[in-house]
Amino acid sequence: MNRLFLPADNAVERALQGLALTHPDLLELHRDPLYLTGRRRNPARRVGLVSGGGSGHEPLHSGFVGPGMLDAAVPGRVFASPHNRQIHEASKKAAGPDGVLHIVKNYTGDRINFGIAAERLRADGIPVRRVLVDDDLATDDASTATGRRGTGATVLVEKLLGGAADTGLGLDELADLGTLFADASRSVAVAARAQTSPSRGGEAFELPDNTLEYGVGIHGERAAEALPNPGLEDLVAHMTDQVLGALPHAADSVLLLVNGLGATTLLELQAVHALVCEALDKRGVHVAGRLVGTYVPALDMSGFSLTLTTLGAGWLDFWNSPAHTPAFTVLEPTR
Amino acid sequence: MNRLFLPADNAVERALQGLALTHPDLLELHRDPLYLTGRRRNPARRVGLVSGGGSGHEPLHSGFVGPGMLDAAVPGRVFASPHNRQIHEASKKAAGPDGVLHIVKNYTGDRINFGIAAERLRADGIPVRRVLVDDDLATDDASTATGRRGTGATVLVEKLLGGAADTGLGLDELADLGTLFADASRSVAVAARAQTSPSRGGEAFELPDNTLEYGVGIHGERAAEALPNPGLEDLVAHMTDQVLGALPHAADSVLLLVNGLGATTLLELQAVHALVCEALDKRGVHVAGRLVGTYVPALDMSGFSLTLTTLGAGWLDFWNSPAHTPAFTVLEPTR
Repeated sequence: MNRLFLPADNAVERALQGLALTHPDLLELHRDPLYLTGRRRNPARRVGLVSGGGSGHEPLHSGFVGPGMLDAAVPGRVFASPHNRQIHEASKKAAGPDGVLHIVKNYTGDRINFGIAAERLRADGIPVRRVLVDDDLATDDASTATGRRGTGATVLVEKLLGGAADTGLGLDELADLGTLFADASRSVAVAARAQTSPSRGGEAFELPDNTLEYGVGIHGERAAEALPNPGLEDLVAHMTDQVLGALPHAADSVLLLVNGLGATTLLELQAVHALVCEALDKRGVHVAGRLVGTYVPALDMSGFSLTLTTLGAGWLDFWNSPAHTPAFTVLEPTR
Repeated sequence: MNRLFLPADNAVERALQGLALTHPDLLELHRDPLYLTGRRRNPARRVGLVSGGGSGHEPLHSGFVGPGMLDAAVPGRVFASPHNRQIHEASKKAAGPDGVLHIVKNYTGDRINFGIAAERLRADGIPVRRVLVDDDLATDDASTATGRRGTGATVLVEKLLGGAADTGLGLDELADLGTLFADASRSVAVAARAQTSPSRGGEAFELPDNTLEYGVGIHGERAAEALPNPGLEDLVAHMTDQVLGALPHAADSVLLLVNGLGATTLLELQAVHALVCEALDKRGVHVAGRLVGTYVPALDMSGFSLTLTTLGAGWLDFWNSPAHTPAFTVLEPTR
């Protein structure tokens, strides 16, 4: 059975239309080609921040357009990269006086399409650089030519870059900093049930009873193996240790994302969050900022992911700087 | 297979602990008995707003505690009413100089437990009144002694009451107004797959392929009949007409809630939202305020609900007044 309610061909366009209706003060919808831009930005910002990728991961990226985060988001069809023409047009519209920074999750299609768009922007005389997000430790294997997948860390990198861009940094400084943000981030994801296949209905893959797909991707990419469910406390402790162990720099102070993969309830995610905090506390790691909710799902997959970013000097200010997007609000400090 | 990651007995307490860790500036967790209170409130507010009910519907109610909305939330176990002692203690803590208003979804257990707590509060000398939310038109049947169930409209009523309370209204004015808000609201819900049973795993009820449970409740209460899926556009048009037809007053200007029941993606909900707006526009109904997302789910059910509230004079100001809670932010108007 198909448990999705997607209208046939124009699901993504309709959904963006719905989102723009919800936030007319924040978002402007462009239809040909399809992309979203923000209506407001901090006047100090010199670089437009543009991200995008396949749909089915909402609120990523469209829900993060607004002052303090992205200037434009470019959606592909479900689990498919956007066309370079969409990225090119969105980037022209969103460019600042110092150009455009592309925030790209590490998938071949996205790299290619953002790459072609970047060439076209350079031909237009618009400076452009790229930050590649590649946080998924399940794909950290020297035998994989494409490298680690980009997953949950994208939200953290987009928020940090938004805060940094609002300080008035130039393109090269921002791109270098963004690469540091991405390098300092690792994630792992676990699923108890696959997402519904939007094309044929039913579960995109089958898991035996009481078995977890450990190291699953946000498009339902299978893990190396399915594991018996060890119980939530042991699972969370193991995930915490694995992510901590994969971070390139010692994690004294971190940003934490506990992310739902679609069908996992807030009740579960907050319970997982409490367990992660206990595990981090025992290991002497301070959580300086956090986000708990469904931010980078894989359609309606049952599962969750854990992301940690080791904080560098000054980064917490970028995290805490004001932002107002459909899915993310940080208020101005109370006067 | 159990697709939930709930830790055995203390899921609700752990989740509240996680939520309080996420929002230490907004929330204070009380453990014996278990409830949440807000750390800040508008000094003009004279009445404490307290809501609660079974868990499994998050962000309802815990995610709506904060300035501009609730002063306390009281969680029961999954799909079970809280104990009157929790409600009594939370109400004492949250009471304003004019007392406490209880916002209660119309279920027998909640009515009884909030009722006992109200008696105890009166014995303590604390004035208390109740607003009963009963919006679900699928249960609008003279043969049902308990009346209509309370579902999605609860969020709209809680926000409207928060805005009204912040104008400094007294208890009786606020209770009477809240009853008007609830009376002006109707909802209907549809499911394509039941939630996971937290006790035994697996789907709480079975639906044949390509069949919808039309008129389902937020605890998985079955509808009178399962219907063949007519396709999303026809389904939305039918739901819109049915809710409009059930509203007691002519709907010129409405608040709209498009609510996910758990496993339904934002992509779907925003596409549904765009279709609802088209349908309302055709029928000459103006949407003055809206909320689109997973606000009152039934654990991980696949489906969505549609709620409309006919706006009375001055109510839009209550809707638009500033609020800051984990799940709901309305910024101060830009200066």
